[in-house]
Amino acid sequence: MKRINKTRNDKVLEVDAPGDLTAPGDLGEPVAGGGLLHRRAFLQGGIAFASASAAVAVTAQDARSAADIAQGTPVTMHTPGAPLSKYGTPSPHERAAVRDFIPNDRRPGTGASRTPLQLLNGTITPNGLHFERHHNGIPNISPDSHQLLIHGMVKRNLFFTLEDLHRYPMETHVRFIECSGNSGGLRAEEVAQRSAGSLHGLVSCSEWTGVRLAVLLEEAGVDPAANWILAEGADAAGMSRSVPLEKCWEDAVIALYQNGEAIRPEQGYPMRLLLPGYEGNMSVKWLHRIKVTETPTYTKDETSKYSDLLPSGKSLLFTFTQGVKSVITQPSQGDTLPGPGAYQITGLAWSGAGAVRKVEVSADGGTSWADAALDGPVLPMALTRFRIPWAWQGGRVPIQSRATDESGNVQPTRDEWLSLYGPSQFYHYNAIQLWGVDTDGSVWNIYYA
Amino acid sequence: MKRINKTRNDKVLEVDAPGDLTAPGDLGEPVAGGGLLHRRAFLQGGIAFASASAAVAVTAQDARSAADIAQGTPVTMHTPGAPLSKYGTPSPHERAAVRDFIPNDRRPGTGASRTPLQLLNGTITPNGLHFERHHNGIPNISPDSHQLLIHGMVKRNLFFTLEDLHRYPMETHVRFIECSGNSGGLRAEEVAQRSAGSLHGLVSCSEWTGVRLAVLLEEAGVDPAANWILAEGADAAGMSRSVPLEKCWEDAVIALYQNGEAIRPEQGYPMRLLLPGYEGNMSVKWLHRIKVTETPTYTKDETSKYSDLLPSGKSLLFTFTQGVKSVITQPSQGDTLPGPGAYQITGLAWSGAGAVRKVEVSADGGTSWADAALDGPVLPMALTRFRIPWAWQGGRVPIQSRATDESGNVQPTRDEWLSLYGPSQFYHYNAIQLWGVDTDGSVWNIYYA
Repeated sequence: MKRINKTRNDKVLEVDAPGDLTAPGDLGEPVAGGGLLHRRAFLQGGIAFASASAAVAVTAQDARSAADIAQGTPVTMHTPGAPLSKYGTPSPHERAAVRDFIPNDRRPGTGASRTPLQLLNGTITPNGLHFERHHNGIPNISPDSHQLLIHGMVKRNLFFTLEDLHRYPMETHVRFIECSGNSGGLRAEEVAQRSAGSLHGLVSCSEWTGVRLAVLLEEAGVDPAANWILAEGADAAGMSRSVPLEKCWEDAVIALYQNGEAIRPEQGYPMRLLLPGYEGNMSVKWLHRIKVTETPTYTKDETSKYSDLLPSGKSLLFTFTQGVKSVITQPSQGDTLPGPGAYQITGLAWSGAGAVRKVEVSADGGTSWADAALDGPVLPMALTRFRIPWAWQGGRVPIQSRATDESGNVQPTRDEWLSLYGPSQFYHYNAIQLWGVDTDGSVWNIYYA
Repeated sequence: MKRINKTRNDKVLEVDAPGDLTAPGDLGEPVAGGGLLHRRAFLQGGIAFASASAAVAVTAQDARSAADIAQGTPVTMHTPGAPLSKYGTPSPHERAAVRDFIPNDRRPGTGASRTPLQLLNGTITPNGLHFERHHNGIPNISPDSHQLLIHGMVKRNLFFTLEDLHRYPMETHVRFIECSGNSGGLRAEEVAQRSAGSLHGLVSCSEWTGVRLAVLLEEAGVDPAANWILAEGADAAGMSRSVPLEKCWEDAVIALYQNGEAIRPEQGYPMRLLLPGYEGNMSVKWLHRIKVTETPTYTKDETSKYSDLLPSGKSLLFTFTQGVKSVITQPSQGDTLPGPGAYQITGLAWSGAGAVRKVEVSADGGTSWADAALDGPVLPMALTRFRIPWAWQGGRVPIQSRATDESGNVQPTRDEWLSLYGPSQFYHYNAIQLWGVDTDGSVWNIYYA
């Protein structure tokens, strides 16, 4: 039996023995400890769930009487409702579903806001909730005057207006963007009792549409001696990164649309570079300049930041690809399960190296693992939703997910991740997230002691 | 040579002979008349486009000088930008990208607003721009008190709160919803000079997440003698439709999330029925009641409306599945091409019967057709984006798209569609849309004379 921490000094949450946590027989045989059921247990016409209801929990309530039904028309049916609108907004009852950030009064445009992953479902992040990371605020750019310049080691320098780019062939892909600082708080010794979004919400996923950068570089004519580009944003931080030309030929896109509509101001309006699978800041927002170069430019943004401290004290530069990762979003920290019975554990998985191959879930401290179902289509460098049915019988249960990508990369444990880096490293944290369900149904962020 | 109409009395736009419209040799051989190029012509490292630039049109402008480049930092780089926000909104420069509707002062909650298809790209419709169709306004429903009742021919009546439903297994699918009245204006004799969205924007596409209805019906226990359900909304119109039980077992979902976040008020918050591929109003919004029945209920919404008048004077009831359809969104009515040269023709295709198998494009009045590229993954009952490169040489050119679905259904011409129905029928209009490009680059809605 493993002991686990809610906080560094609060080692009270012990894992119940896996043997205590099997599911009732009429839910079907559990496939792993802690009550995990086969990923298709609830998808066979609902039979398993229906027959399990009496044994585990009847979530629906029996209607009280036929009279109740007959007279019970909702009050909203008695009065005409609200009118049509030009651009819709979420329900006023969903005000909790907002980006999470601490306002910075001295530098209001510098910082990050996080996607509330624990309140979302599916894989697309709505545009209003895509995470933000700005280094000096969101510029207000007029689409009529903005131009993209391609220069440096090219046959001819070219300017592209937005109207120009709209004549070029476009393509559409669902891609995640993740800040390399995402989840970095989990490396701290103290266990932060914060939500899934607050801990891991510097990742979002959109359907992006734009012009393949390779087409524009071909038109400019790249010098065969060139190996890199410098991409620079038109923001007041002059955010700029070096990108290998190889990535530009492969799948880089000048993105103009996000989930169908013009890209949002906080995502780079009117255009951003999109580098699938690479750390988010390299997908330079408000893109106005690409300079083709022989070597990296070693900008402030890739030397003072976004480098990885090793145990030796040296730092790695240019570690672009985001690691394979997953997090359970429901249930997660801050939730309270209403009672024992059947649930669906669900979460998100992704990898900068391609498609997610599998996600395993454990509910017994890692003794046994069960394969979760993956919502299809499973797309490369996109968030993938996983789901697995689970019978919670009221015990203390740690739940965790572990992703494997198509290249065979496996998400590490926290201890494994910590051993790879120096003491203050927090970029590229992709370790397994543990949530602990306590006997009262409350869910906590936990580490193993 | 076909003559085509801009308006009924304005037969001035003649199609140039297809022979005049071949593409320059260095763009590669055209694959169909009117300048259509192979769908992959621009996707081979950009070589074709680059070499074609001199011959057809250089869209990018050469940078004027190295001095210009060096001194030309955008003004937005000189001042800190705007702060982070809890919930983002589109750029103030995109105010034209709104839903299109004519306010109804007497009944402000009754009518329809349309997605501005001509300003969007990709396949997802952002939630703020999903079309609306309300019969008596948008109810303001509290998620804490709302319940879904399942009753009628079941073993036990059940109430489901929103919290109940969140314990059930969910699933995620990208699906279009199309109003059966979409595009109906095109059956009029007069050619309406309106945008693609204004004509065809009662179709939108989202990633929907929810609970499979079959699971809930299993739990209620359906009487073997039952064949239908009645689905009723909690709006002031009591919008209600009969749905075959077969569809409920197959793929109906109680949708709770739309593009990741809680479903929007105008889309049925907190829950709507989602019937993939069926006419939109059957995906009943603000769903509060499902009654299992032996026969259809013949509600006001399926007898006085949403029925199809035949040439015989009889009407068809219960024609649920939306037909195979496509529309070119760029270029489309209201656009003005800036000059001869290379463009990408793009648009949307969909079918209620499954996935789109192919989309053909013609630029010579239907004499020849070329296969467009389809953005993958091509998903069933979802909008599919098609794209094809095109060299416009400045002539008068009609452009049109024709979709075929996986069942082999082919989108009809307008004349073919008109022959199927009675004189005032406007539901289920899925005929081919023609746009006419005039010599000045202006684009018009046209019919063949």
